[in-house]
Amino acid sequence: MSLETFLITLEAFGVVAFALSGVIEAARKHFDLVGVVMVAAITAFGGGTLRDVLLDRRPFFWVEQEFWVWALIAVAFALPFFFRARHLKLTEKAMLIPDAFGLGIFAAGGTHIALSTGASPLISVIMGVITAVIGGVLRDVLVNEVPRAFHDHQPYAVLAFTGGWVVVLLSYLGTPKSFDVLAGAVLIIVLRLLAVRFGWELRRWNFL
Amino acid sequence: MSLETFLITLEAFGVVAFALSGVIEAARKHFDLVGVVMVAAITAFGGGTLRDVLLDRRPFFWVEQEFWVWALIAVAFALPFFFRARHLKLTEKAMLIPDAFGLGIFAAGGTHIALSTGASPLISVIMGVITAVIGGVLRDVLVNEVPRAFHDHQPYAVLAFTGGWVVVLLSYLGTPKSFDVLAGAVLIIVLRLLAVRFGWELRRWNFL
Amino acid sequence: MSLETFLITLEAFGVVAFALSGVIEAARKHFDLVGVVMVAAITAFGGGTLRDVLLDRRPFFWVEQEFWVWALIAVAFALPFFFRARHLKLTEKAMLIPDAFGLGIFAAGGTHIALSTGASPLISVIMGVITAVIGGVLRDVLVNEVPRAFHDHQPYAVLAFTGGWVVVLLSYLGTPKSFDVLAGAVLIIVLRLLAVRFGWELRRWNFL
Repeated sequence: MSLETFLITLEAFGVVAFALSGVIEAARKHFDLVGVVMVAAITAFGGGTLRDVLLDRRPFFWVEQEFWVWALIAVAFALPFFFRARHLKLTEKAMLIPDAFGLGIFAAGGTHIALSTGASPLISVIMGVITAVIGGVLRDVLVNEVPRAFHDHQPYAVLAFTGGWVVVLLSYLGTPKSFDVLAGAVLIIVLRLLAVRFGWELRRWNFL
Repeated sequence: MSLETFLITLEAFGVVAFALSGVIEAARKHFDLVGVVMVAAITAFGGGTLRDVLLDRRPFFWVEQEFWVWALIAVAFALPFFFRARHLKLTEKAMLIPDAFGLGIFAAGGTHIALSTGASPLISVIMGVITAVIGGVLRDVLVNEVPRAFHDHQPYAVLAFTGGWVVVLLSYLGTPKSFDVLAGAVLIIVLRLLAVRFGWELRRWNFL
Repeated sequence: MSLETFLITLEAFGVVAFALSGVIEAARKHFDLVGVVMVAAITAFGGGTLRDVLLDRRPFFWVEQEFWVWALIAVAFALPFFFRARHLKLTEKAMLIPDAFGLGIFAAGGTHIALSTGASPLISVIMGVITAVIGGVLRDVLVNEVPRAFHDHQPYAVLAFTGGWVVVLLSYLGTPKSFDVLAGAVLIIVLRLLAVRFGWELRRWNFL
């Protein structure tokens, strides 16, 4: 598999994962079906689109890979009925699992994409964080909640930041690019799932 | 009237309609006069500007047609006093009428603009939806409400989507472009006004 | 000091001022440390980045002047501990002082930047307002509040608008560009601080 095919496949997984988190969150808030599709789409494509606008990179992923837009629309329509048929509870925790996959894939992939446009390490890592975090922030703003990424006191954006630096460091070692991205993504996903599972918290601080 | 003049005139109507909906919404929330002007401007120009950024299309409508910015500022300042003088109630329903006109005009016009830049049918229809829906979503986020487009269980974005496909289909039939856009816009506006009038609802679903 | 150095130094002050306002606001809402850094960054860079996207101007300030990103991260991490050590209260009023400096600097600087890309006076002034106001609006949306700029009934955006016109008028008089920007910025800052200090209000109006 070529590097490009690998990256597109990986980004597609990230899109699906974030779309799933958007579906669950919008469904929990009793949005209508169209609202569910739109929140899913904005969660899935928001971060990558902002990254591409900032890097002045066209065409967008979802313009070039139109198939995934159709897939997303189909999945977002089908999912609620699937959940219902299986009597699955849409808890907040259920949302956090696909969200962790989206976080890792988009942070590592976004960092790699920025690096390959010649951006500096710091800017590339920030672009990775933007790719990974903005979709979820938009999702939370749209359902009228304070963005979880900012105030849940659990490691989230900080993991995207860390994983991005791993991708940068590996890019200097001459390992295959697809390995760099995969390693960064897996590291972030594993740490995030552990953080959710064991309730890891960032150092609390209070001064009011 | 040339096609270009027609489209600019139509877009201007859409701008005024959305601005009006922004004025009403901001006034209902007791924003100050400057806030009313800014919410009106963001509602009116937000969707089209995002569309143009995504399509990498410059200059923006409001940069090229500066007259409309002046008009919007004047109208937004004058309107509250007009309403007051006439003892008009600014109900939520009053806001939905200009909003329907903005929805139809921007969805059909946005789809046509994207098509004419060579975008695929699906992407063009999505650009139409973005043009039509994002202004209202920003308006609702700015007044700290859950976007109506996503959770009021009434047909809204889905009408923009449908009308966009009508514009795409007509574009294959060789009808004059201005007819395509007008037909799509009128269809959306009529359906939306009927939906508001008779309380049409999307299929409800609930699984929590 | 060359004009360019002067403008970069001034913009850096604006970035720090807005970042400070973001830190205070996020801390008041009990965001975690990462959330504080991200809200500070979005408040500081949001307005200028949107201006540059709209003007199609690259590279962004924070891409070109990477030092300031590092500075911002360091400051945002250090500040809460500084405040705590000094037993400083983070009141809403404390936030308004750096916010006033950011407002003035970004409005005057943004207007000048837009003018120098050949934009018309009105568009330049609007770009100044966008530069100055959007960062704070994003900050308020992210902490789930109605944007202060729109509903606190105090002069804010209107000062950015006024100061922008001062920059435009001075640009016709042949005064040095750095004087134009500085005069506009100081005027806005002084008026805003006076407005906060003496509780100046925009004309109230109510019609519901």
